[in-house]
Amino acid sequence: MDLTLYGHTDFKKGRKMKGYVQVYTGDGKGKTTAALGLALRAAGAGLNVYIAQFVKGMKYSELNIISELQNITLKQYGRDCFINKKPEIEDIKAALAGLREAREMMCSGKYQMIILDEANIATYYNLFSVEDLLNFIREKPDEVELVITGRRADPRIIEVADLVTEMKEIKHYYQHGVEAREGIEK
Amino acid sequence: MDLTLYGHTDFKKGRKMKGYVQVYTGDGKGKTTAALGLALRAAGAGLNVYIAQFVKGMKYSELNIISELQNITLKQYGRDCFINKKPEIEDIKAALAGLREAREMMCSGKYQMIILDEANIATYYNLFSVEDLLNFIREKPDEVELVITGRRADPRIIEVADLVTEMKEIKHYYQHGVEAREGIEK
Repeated sequence: MDLTLYGHTDFKKGRKMKGYVQVYTGDGKGKTTAALGLALRAAGAGLNVYIAQFVKGMKYSELNIISELQNITLKQYGRDCFINKKPEIEDIKAALAGLREAREMMCSGKYQMIILDEANIATYYNLFSVEDLLNFIREKPDEVELVITGRRADPRIIEVADLVTEMKEIKHYYQHGVEAREGIEK
Repeated sequence: MDLTLYGHTDFKKGRKMKGYVQVYTGDGKGKTTAALGLALRAAGAGLNVYIAQFVKGMKYSELNIISELQNITLKQYGRDCFINKKPEIEDIKAALAGLREAREMMCSGKYQMIILDEANIATYYNLFSVEDLLNFIREKPDEVELVITGRRADPRIIEVADLVTEMKEIKHYYQHGVEAREGIEK
């Protein structure tokens, strides 16, 4: 494969690389943190990363430190409150606005990695449709790496993705009544 | 559960929390990045994190940015070269020294999260034994969160862990000849 045909520069080697679509799904812990780790690694290589968090509105601990990192931008498009209930029109509006803004960022040429955190769960709750997300993927410039997280990834998303990891829950301390802890889960 | 009985401070609420043992294993992509994401979140909450990378000696992109983050320390204890071959005495010495140093850090009271990256694969290659790793886990202070990554986690490690996620490879672009890319895989 001639890597020079493609977009973003591998800064050390002065060549360009093709970007792929990665999906992290499943019920186990590690989806959002894997995306954050990818963002950290990418930023370490001088790439610019845009993280759109859907559904979530809570101020997770990572926000404190990401705001200090020049190469990573994170924006939330959720209200954190409808899980297990029916989303309201405000939730849908926020998610659609987020998808629109993330698409602008993806096509701006400014970012080499776009992360749609919890986008799978957003389709599951019909905040936007699977077709909306497929259209987003279709518009991905060749040089951009696109990372999509969230449980219950639709089979159509899995089909078009280049890499899919299922985080499978083998054991979880939530089962023993441990609540989300600041700095660990949130 | 009375959280005030335990170690590290939940800074916002001024209370202490118990630390658990988390294991990320399986053949899928996302184990080390999930650990890096956990480190980033923990650092964002003001916790101090020590990352010991076994087997690895290559300069991954995350090293550039982690060295700028005050709360995260990362040290490599590998030479990156024996995979699929037999480890040499230097590899074993480096891994044992790493386990010893990580134990010192874990028991120093300075760190609230310890990450043993690729420790499972280190036991698989007999750089140190499963019993060595079990002893490490037994010495964990109550307030420290311990995160262990690497494929082929031994069943005895899974048994004593509080949380285990298997990263299951559903699809991987390596299968299509894509090589590790700087800023994405390394």
